[in-house]
Amino acid sequence: MSAQPVLIAGRWRASKATGTFRADNPTTKEPLPDEYPISAWQDCDEALNAAVETAEILRRTPPEKIGAFLDTLATRVEARKDEFVAMAHAESALPKAPRLSEVEFPRAVGQFRLGAAAAREGSWALPTIDTKANIRSILAPIGPVCVFGPNNFPFAFNSAAGGDFVAAIAAGNPVIAKANSSHPGTTRLFAEEAFAASQQAGLPAAIVQLIYRTGHSDGERLVSDARVGATGYTGSRNAGLKLKTAADGAGKPIYLELSSVNPVVILPGVLEERLEEVAADFAGSCLMGAGQFCTNPGFVILQKGPRTDAFVKLVADKFRAAPVGTLLSKAVEKALTDAVATLVRAGAEVVAGGKAGGGQGYSFANTLLLASGEHFLRNHAALQTEAFGNSTLFVIADDLDQLCRIVDNVEGSLTGCVYTHRGGADDAAYDQVAFHLRPRVGRLLNDKMPTGVAVSPAMNHGGPYPSTGHPGFTAVGIPASLRRFAALQSFDNVRPARLPPLLQDKNPTGKTWRLIDLEWTQRSL
Amino acid sequence: MSAQPVLIAGRWRASKATGTFRADNPTTKEPLPDEYPISAWQDCDEALNAAVETAEILRRTPPEKIGAFLDTLATRVEARKDEFVAMAHAESALPKAPRLSEVEFPRAVGQFRLGAAAAREGSWALPTIDTKANIRSILAPIGPVCVFGPNNFPFAFNSAAGGDFVAAIAAGNPVIAKANSSHPGTTRLFAEEAFAASQQAGLPAAIVQLIYRTGHSDGERLVSDARVGATGYTGSRNAGLKLKTAADGAGKPIYLELSSVNPVVILPGVLEERLEEVAADFAGSCLMGAGQFCTNPGFVILQKGPRTDAFVKLVADKFRAAPVGTLLSKAVEKALTDAVATLVRAGAEVVAGGKAGGGQGYSFANTLLLASGEHFLRNHAALQTEAFGNSTLFVIADDLDQLCRIVDNVEGSLTGCVYTHRGGADDAAYDQVAFHLRPRVGRLLNDKMPTGVAVSPAMNHGGPYPSTGHPGFTAVGIPASLRRFAALQSFDNVRPARLPPLLQDKNPTGKTWRLIDLEWTQRSL
Repeated sequence: MSAQPVLIAGRWRASKATGTFRADNPTTKEPLPDEYPISAWQDCDEALNAAVETAEILRRTPPEKIGAFLDTLATRVEARKDEFVAMAHAESALPKAPRLSEVEFPRAVGQFRLGAAAAREGSWALPTIDTKANIRSILAPIGPVCVFGPNNFPFAFNSAAGGDFVAAIAAGNPVIAKANSSHPGTTRLFAEEAFAASQQAGLPAAIVQLIYRTGHSDGERLVSDARVGATGYTGSRNAGLKLKTAADGAGKPIYLELSSVNPVVILPGVLEERLEEVAADFAGSCLMGAGQFCTNPGFVILQKGPRTDAFVKLVADKFRAAPVGTLLSKAVEKALTDAVATLVRAGAEVVAGGKAGGGQGYSFANTLLLASGEHFLRNHAALQTEAFGNSTLFVIADDLDQLCRIVDNVEGSLTGCVYTHRGGADDAAYDQVAFHLRPRVGRLLNDKMPTGVAVSPAMNHGGPYPSTGHPGFTAVGIPASLRRFAALQSFDNVRPARLPPLLQDKNPTGKTWRLIDLEWTQRSL
Repeated sequence: MSAQPVLIAGRWRASKATGTFRADNPTTKEPLPDEYPISAWQDCDEALNAAVETAEILRRTPPEKIGAFLDTLATRVEARKDEFVAMAHAESALPKAPRLSEVEFPRAVGQFRLGAAAAREGSWALPTIDTKANIRSILAPIGPVCVFGPNNFPFAFNSAAGGDFVAAIAAGNPVIAKANSSHPGTTRLFAEEAFAASQQAGLPAAIVQLIYRTGHSDGERLVSDARVGATGYTGSRNAGLKLKTAADGAGKPIYLELSSVNPVVILPGVLEERLEEVAADFAGSCLMGAGQFCTNPGFVILQKGPRTDAFVKLVADKFRAAPVGTLLSKAVEKALTDAVATLVRAGAEVVAGGKAGGGQGYSFANTLLLASGEHFLRNHAALQTEAFGNSTLFVIADDLDQLCRIVDNVEGSLTGCVYTHRGGADDAAYDQVAFHLRPRVGRLLNDKMPTGVAVSPAMNHGGPYPSTGHPGFTAVGIPASLRRFAALQSFDNVRPARLPPLLQDKNPTGKTWRLIDLEWTQRSL
């Protein structure tokens, strides 16, 4: 059987391949039928040339057409929903319902439509006019964007459909999608629809190109190629930092969304007030999708107190009682096994679970680990090894001071949560904890688990290094996520008719927000 | 004679020095009297500890106090204007008037006041509220900022006073200033006033710290230290890229403003219409301050035509007739000598000047070099060697097609100018040229030389690599330049009283612009 074609330069053609691979069905551990190519550099090279040409065409394309493309894509993808859900389920073992069909699919389709609206409206680009100096500036497309999607969201973060994809396209850039090897089929379906949508919208077909896999060194070469504008990567820290080194060396922006332990601090008053409720919330958030979320609460800090042991015991009971989910792949099972072993070697005690198996296919027992605050402070690097999956580490601080010192040693993380008593019993402690936690996380939550990442204009799905490569950007949320894939361009004394429409005196949409002489307005000049 | 003290942790104290240096008076080539220390790592280490403490205090400081600090600094610096001008003149040889006292000094003082206003008003931080999801986000101070200033603007880009300094402070961060070795005395005067202003405003004195010089490896260690938030660097590409490698490796944002050739395209119609006017504009811009501007027009692209030779000849005459300015330092004279030699070796022909000397002190003859378009296309890398100073390269294209190919080979640059006929004779050509030039430069100008860099909200003093390290940011302009020194922070379901004032329902200033449910508004909720 021959390998699936790649989508390069506007046509589906055989890959210049160095080999092939097949994804596994994680539930059966059997390889799925389709064979996919591992591209040689020549595929990347041709994709880059086509992307450069397409980027030039997109620079002359009215935003309306980009919007139409994304809206068409939404409609087309919706029409094949059952196929998408079946394929993603086969490749990821994520439940068809509610997860894939009721949560992630609508979210992905919604992102297309939000991106379309943002592209048409243009406010994302922060058009700025200084009437006195006659200088005007705007964020403009950065050029071809490479997208490397993660394994854990076959729809919402797919290289050919997810948040990075939508942000790059809505900002006016072509995308070279590198599929995640665990769901090549789902990615192919998206690329098929993107290809068709590009024809329907009258856009160059190379607005989306698809490569399934490359050698590591070709990946590094790709993100650092002179023809690339920027890269969006979501995935493991190890692979992400290698790409970062390559891209940095060539001066190419790369936006990473890497691993993160996502600390959750639960203060003593809460346990007095609503121990059962928080334990249920926590276990639900931590085990959902077998814990395979970027914002999975993998690290809980408690303070020694009258109900702390009861809380630990209740969570352990829930972990033991809960069904064991199927993991995304053999690699995830292995990485989780290794990470738990590392944590145990670093001194964490196994309270529940701790070994592979127990579920259908690739799986690992729901695992709760425990360490003292003192122990954590002595081994904080090793005890922050990310255990991606259905495992969490509880650290018990002796007192509030030690708890704050633990927080001070938390690595940059996407999220940080603090649970406090509703009546105010924890308020003084909250002020201290939040002060220490705030600069270490991208999103601070109160009384809420971090696993929901709303596509909100105020979302920050980002955070300090090493959870990302730059603390100023978010991978989720529109319009902010679009600004990653843009370059600031200033126009100084440029003749009026030569300005981009959004910088001309007349507001071309009548609705775009522009910063005119330091005032945000929708008016024309 | 003992070395000047450094300003660390809120006091002027003797440096833990590994050596000392003195700056030269570039006019006399004699060392100036004051001796300055080369700090050992211990100075950096203590400064970093003090900066971390100060950053924590600033996080609890109302923006009003930061504004008061910058306003006080403006007033205090103004009161010592004569001393500042005398010191900067002695250290840089830049003319006291108009340059230092009438242009650069008022600009630097104006930046303090604009920064103060931006800090108080807060709109720079893009406060964003999603009322439905109850998620709110804002740009928050990133932490201690290291500032490395360039040699060519002792006031406006000074490490302890210039654009990066003001942006970092206005965004709420302490600054560790690393003086430029060519004007340590001017930097010391600024730091004295910053120290006094901090006391007057009731802020920690370590909001500004001053080190004069370090070994190269300590500089790299500084920008990559875990305690640093970010770095702003303006200077040579070579040193800047070394710091970038160090900072990138540690995941620390570094904003670079490096060398740039700043292409100027002069189309044939202009030469028919106003050859003399453009020649005068060009020579003035290119020789001003002995050409020592980041945006100096070092590279002019002309098209073969009936008046091209006349234009070259007129500029050459002007270059020969103009007085030869004094260069900033021996190092600048040497670098310029080397760069011109490199350009000549790469095949450029010397039309005027070409050798060191001819002015008072460190100097180099006003230099005009010439190459054909074909020659440039064969040697474009070497022919873009930056000759920082009063030298420029003219490239003569055979036709418009070749001219566009030349533009396609221009490295990322801060600015790009296109001069066209006022009556429209060049309009068709403009469209082509601008299309090729636009993505290669940060600021596109029409009929205007690039040397003026207005402190405008719409300014982009930035551009694609290698003119900077990231095309999304500007080093000049308020409020945009502040956003470099900030981290995005999101608040998800955080209780109302715990939100930062700018994210609470009530707009605390009544004037801050906030993006509420995708609408920019000054209203309260």
